[in-house]
Amino acid sequence: MKLSQFFFKSRKDIPSDAALISHKLMIKASMIKQITAGIYTWLPLGLKIIKKIENIIRKVHDKYGCQELLMPTIQPSSLWKKSERYNDYGPEMLKFHDRNKKELLYGPTNEELITEVFKEYINSYKDLPKNLYQIQWKFRDEIRPRFGVMRCREFLMKDNYSFDLTKKDAENTYNNMFKCYLEIFNNIGLKVIPVKADPGAIGGDLSHEFHLISQSGDNTILYDKKLGDINKLDYKNSFDLLRNIYSVTEDEYNKKKDLDLTKLVKTKGIEIGHIFYFGTKYSEKLNASVLNNKGKKVYVEMGSYGIGVSRLVAAVIESSHDDNGIIWPKNISPFHVGLINLNMKNVNLNKTCKKIYDFLIKNKVDVLYDDTKQTPGEKFSTMDLIGLPSQIILGENSFKNNYFEIKNRKNNNTIKCKINNLKKILEVI
Amino acid sequence: MKLSQFFFKSRKDIPSDAALISHKLMIKASMIKQITAGIYTWLPLGLKIIKKIENIIRKVHDKYGCQELLMPTIQPSSLWKKSERYNDYGPEMLKFHDRNKKELLYGPTNEELITEVFKEYINSYKDLPKNLYQIQWKFRDEIRPRFGVMRCREFLMKDNYSFDLTKKDAENTYNNMFKCYLEIFNNIGLKVIPVKADPGAIGGDLSHEFHLISQSGDNTILYDKKLGDINKLDYKNSFDLLRNIYSVTEDEYNKKKDLDLTKLVKTKGIEIGHIFYFGTKYSEKLNASVLNNKGKKVYVEMGSYGIGVSRLVAAVIESSHDDNGIIWPKNISPFHVGLINLNMKNVNLNKTCKKIYDFLIKNKVDVLYDDTKQTPGEKFSTMDLIGLPSQIILGENSFKNNYFEIKNRKNNNTIKCKINNLKKILEVI
Repeated sequence: MKLSQFFFKSRKDIPSDAALISHKLMIKASMIKQITAGIYTWLPLGLKIIKKIENIIRKVHDKYGCQELLMPTIQPSSLWKKSERYNDYGPEMLKFHDRNKKELLYGPTNEELITEVFKEYINSYKDLPKNLYQIQWKFRDEIRPRFGVMRCREFLMKDNYSFDLTKKDAENTYNNMFKCYLEIFNNIGLKVIPVKADPGAIGGDLSHEFHLISQSGDNTILYDKKLGDINKLDYKNSFDLLRNIYSVTEDEYNKKKDLDLTKLVKTKGIEIGHIFYFGTKYSEKLNASVLNNKGKKVYVEMGSYGIGVSRLVAAVIESSHDDNGIIWPKNISPFHVGLINLNMKNVNLNKTCKKIYDFLIKNKVDVLYDDTKQTPGEKFSTMDLIGLPSQIILGENSFKNNYFEIKNRKNNNTIKCKINNLKKILEVI
Repeated sequence: MKLSQFFFKSRKDIPSDAALISHKLMIKASMIKQITAGIYTWLPLGLKIIKKIENIIRKVHDKYGCQELLMPTIQPSSLWKKSERYNDYGPEMLKFHDRNKKELLYGPTNEELITEVFKEYINSYKDLPKNLYQIQWKFRDEIRPRFGVMRCREFLMKDNYSFDLTKKDAENTYNNMFKCYLEIFNNIGLKVIPVKADPGAIGGDLSHEFHLISQSGDNTILYDKKLGDINKLDYKNSFDLLRNIYSVTEDEYNKKKDLDLTKLVKTKGIEIGHIFYFGTKYSEKLNASVLNNKGKKVYVEMGSYGIGVSRLVAAVIESSHDDNGIIWPKNISPFHVGLINLNMKNVNLNKTCKKIYDFLIKNKVDVLYDDTKQTPGEKFSTMDLIGLPSQIILGENSFKNNYFEIKNRKNNNTIKCKINNLKKILEVI
């Protein structure tokens, strides 16, 4: 993609209510545009990151035996009356009537709806377990939407729901989803801490939130110092460790205070995922049962599992940026690499940049080429702001000496690369 | 995917109001489930087809220089008051208030919103043309939703919007999108007829609907007999022909009746796409202008282009089915191939099926394996209903003789294939 053609503008007019750095950077980098309070358009640069996260989520969910479907954004209120959550949910639920005066609502979550769908297709223990997911927009009418897409009203969430015959099966599914989440965050390139959260009426330890550690987090979490430096954790082999170590939300800690504070790390976190076992809470109310191997009707054991996809984009920026802009983890970066031509007036330099651009495209490297007429200083700022992991930089001086530079956005390390050795780019970036 | 694990049930309880064959087949094949009037959940089998169509649309749009973004489903009503469409739209627009009494609506289309987005980022002729698209859910509160997803209320649509400096540029863009649409429908595997439609107040010939010919279509179209058999049309080289041949909606025909009926084919069609140039209608009302090369402010010339993605799924079924079920075009088939094991009790047969299944997955062939305990008759019905282009069939008799069969769903042609020559499958399917 050529920057001169891309729907992008490095914005300077950041609204005064943008308190979070992620909110500022997302506006500055044309990732989002607010339409009205808490409702955003995702511009091309922002949407690219959403799509990358979605694809990672899909791949790992499919691997873990989940199947994707898509529920509508709008639901009949009657379902929520059956589950007795209609009034509980309060004014955060966006309720309205259609032209025939039927009561509808914009789904804030989908336990009711998925249970309705499930029960029409599954009625034997032989068809269990089932685990269904979707990535769909939801709406919660926050009284004070703020922090950009971190706490907005229309938001994108991956939600899945599991159906098991017994509590033991449900527990296995729960642990499976715990692993699934570790793998997703690992694949995105994030270090997260699962913390025990409020299990609600059902009790037990089958409720975990997944937190990204960040000073701007709106939650406080505490975990055992034994965990050590989480940046050194290998998530592929850490299930047992993370599932069993003492690690809780502040609310949970305050209930028992069963570990001395000196043994704990207390820090701020951003919740980006939640897994939750709730047993037969909805299956009983909505009458979702199967026949077991003795022909007896039993209500299915359910759990739900969420990842805030749009919120995750902001959370990643909170945990990965510097004074110059965003630093994307490689796997969700909107482009693989940036290409900066520092002087568009130099014909030979242009030719070489075009050659590199074509070479990258031919090798399936998704490149953003700054072919604009901005000054070198502006070009450096723009590319640092956007935050691609590597930048290929061609200026007059290095060009005269037949080389160009590849800069690592994170640590600013720069290596030189000969113009006649383009293949080296593929090894470095 | 193993059918025993897939979220699928061949349903027999088809609602009596399902008048269209596509509606019946989609329910029968667990592709969709109605949630309330005109609102559906897309089950795994149905969603797979949506995703395939989306991917074809994305690839071709990107190739034609369009950029993807994503607008929210909910919009402030104020925008529609500015464009003076708020009252015109009537009761089909779903309107409501949020908790702060702000007037909102669920977007039925997005000319206003995209114009608002555009004007904040583009203000010079140097940044034109721009062409922005999205694939997003929309809502139209139909008074009588019917025909399944063919005329539902919450529906998925690809909509894009072009912005040009001059009318001539806009006309070029229009023709470019005309080609883009031919390529999309060609890649999906559909034969469509573009017909001139009502250009509205603006006049001219820059309004075309794209119709799939089908006896169940709710539109009548007329086109010049010279076009011949549309099944023989080569869409890659037919732009000039299709752009210039006489071909109109019935309404347009009745305005002038400028060609004798004997020279025309009159048939029913399902509208699956619409492209439309509307000039400065919205840019003037919403003040979207750029400075031209003389520093003069000019309103941008706009067009909009839509494809009904969810409706298209039903339209394809209307035009491609037989008494036994659906017949998917290869490029949007939910799986590449079906694998039928006619006797799950035969251990050796099971082993061979498993070997074929693994072979296909290793070769990246997306296979649906019927490993259920249904009878052979039921298995044949199920696979025909689902409508994958090819079926690999293993029964006792052929197995004894060391071969299996590959059936072409469309023409029922069957070829024999030796069990020790699995590579042949890849050539045939």
